[in-house]
Amino acid sequence: MRIVLDAMGGDFAPQVPVMGAVQAAKELGVKVILTGEEELLKRELSKYSYPAELIEVVDAPQAVSMEEQPAKALKKRNSSIHVGLNLVKEGKADAFVSAGNTGAVMAISLFTVGRIRGVERPAITAILPSLTGYTFLLDVGANVDCKPSHLLQFAVMGSAYARYVLGEENPRVGLLNVGEEEGKGNELTKEAYKLLKAAKEKGLNFVGNAEGRDIYSGRFDVIVCDGFVGNVCLKLSESLAKILAKILKEEIEKHFISKIGAITLKPAIKGFKRRIDYAEIGGAPLLGLNAPVIISHGSSNAKAIKNAIRTATRFVKSELNRHIEKEIGKFGKGNGD
Amino acid sequence: MRIVLDAMGGDFAPQVPVMGAVQAAKELGVKVILTGEEELLKRELSKYSYPAELIEVVDAPQAVSMEEQPAKALKKRNSSIHVGLNLVKEGKADAFVSAGNTGAVMAISLFTVGRIRGVERPAITAILPSLTGYTFLLDVGANVDCKPSHLLQFAVMGSAYARYVLGEENPRVGLLNVGEEEGKGNELTKEAYKLLKAAKEKGLNFVGNAEGRDIYSGRFDVIVCDGFVGNVCLKLSESLAKILAKILKEEIEKHFISKIGAITLKPAIKGFKRRIDYAEIGGAPLLGLNAPVIISHGSSNAKAIKNAIRTATRFVKSELNRHIEKEIGKFGKGNGD
Repeated sequence: MRIVLDAMGGDFAPQVPVMGAVQAAKELGVKVILTGEEELLKRELSKYSYPAELIEVVDAPQAVSMEEQPAKALKKRNSSIHVGLNLVKEGKADAFVSAGNTGAVMAISLFTVGRIRGVERPAITAILPSLTGYTFLLDVGANVDCKPSHLLQFAVMGSAYARYVLGEENPRVGLLNVGEEEGKGNELTKEAYKLLKAAKEKGLNFVGNAEGRDIYSGRFDVIVCDGFVGNVCLKLSESLAKILAKILKEEIEKHFISKIGAITLKPAIKGFKRRIDYAEIGGAPLLGLNAPVIISHGSSNAKAIKNAIRTATRFVKSELNRHIEKEIGKFGKGNGD
Repeated sequence: MRIVLDAMGGDFAPQVPVMGAVQAAKELGVKVILTGEEELLKRELSKYSYPAELIEVVDAPQAVSMEEQPAKALKKRNSSIHVGLNLVKEGKADAFVSAGNTGAVMAISLFTVGRIRGVERPAITAILPSLTGYTFLLDVGANVDCKPSHLLQFAVMGSAYARYVLGEENPRVGLLNVGEEEGKGNELTKEAYKLLKAAKEKGLNFVGNAEGRDIYSGRFDVIVCDGFVGNVCLKLSESLAKILAKILKEEIEKHFISKIGAITLKPAIKGFKRRIDYAEIGGAPLLGLNAPVIISHGSSNAKAIKNAIRTATRFVKSELNRHIEKEIGKFGKGNGD
């Protein structure tokens, strides 16, 4: 198993990706190929001891910033993303991991490895902590205007990921909507509901409509939506959690007695943080591409990178893309095509 | 000033609305007309002492449940909602307040008082606590499929409400989108951006795109979106706040020392709750209707109802609808019509 890691991606590159790669090599015994500025990466690697045969550096002198337009990034054929995905395309590596610019990774993936046969639109995904475990949400930004058949395919791909990679036996799939009852929704979700309902007969475990509150309720394992709604939900969630924590902190500091009490809360706060920490999950896949691609959060620490590499190995071992191709072949666009 | 209160609306009707009406009469000196089952309301009122001339009961024997389809509710001409809105229509009252079924209130309002001239689509709104104050979000559910001109009109109406009722001098208006830069978005928001940008020249303080994180950042006073996205955001926010609090509580209970510390946190928790408490705001308007209509949260307590009545009086005093009609006349549908 050989995983390519974009060593120039993320807010703390190359230090954090390099440290994550070292951890993955030592703790997971996985071979990691780092793409990026060779000199820089070798200097960074010299700080650590690790099994030399498990880390390789491939030079990729161009950088893609976090804000760069995908179309512009696509032109940089020697970027750490492009070089890395080419390694996968050429069979020199099995999967690609990046904490960098998600839009750029998606665009360059489409250009290099392409889509799985039958997939209309690959999706960006997110794994969000719920009361009982995790909810797998897609699309969260690749497709801001969707057709009903896209949502059906997101459901098929998301369900396959939850089953084969996350180990859910019979993932419960929901359609993000404005009400629980059948018949609720906008034009897109009303039509998508029909396709999903029909797909139940072919074995998709479509449970029904999910509401905004269900993203965190644990009632669904997979929730599908268009990339506009998903993107807004994801950014809203991240900020709301931060803001609520900030307001609580401000209030604690206002009251002397609470300030003292807060010290005793440390173990609880630590447990709380662990439960909502993305680093424990360590990355979510781009689904529908002809190779395993995992995106890690831009602010990932080394542990998150290591866990993203672990996720990539599971993706490869599960042969997920073979399953997706088969499932997409079975469900098509949901209209008997 | 005479405010009609739907005494049968909300999770704790008629007890809570009646108590809220009594508080409003005593503390604000506002005349409140309660609509609902007369016998029941009079029995409930007999529990309190209040200035008799400030509370009146108008019989409305039919009930509309929280889950009832708006089309079905519309047929009940003797419901507390229908009777109440008719009082406003006939000039016997100045505004209508309900903690009941929002969809039903919107449908019955459209049927009785109708829309303000020039308004294409009235909107349901929400007032959300931000780090620095409040963000006014619309539409949150009335219009799940929108045209660009609808978003422009939401901006015009929301801006007027923020200015004339909430007292913001020059409300900063944002368009909910997937990125900050111009050119980002789906078909709807790309077109809406153009209309909003053009409206800047006519005096609308359009600041630009807002992202999911900006709903709580305090960078915008008014954020517009289609009712599908807004509804998902609202429900997501409510549940996420609850779930984060629940996870924190579970963790506190796991650790004995934190459990003791938690007692000292009470003043901080109280302050925290006050800052995110909808009861302090007490209701958000339906905008674009030909009468002031305020919706209070279904789980409102008496204080929230009282504050919603206060909001209704401000709505009336500000002559908001006169301003909206004028502004809508100025901006139209944004395409020179």
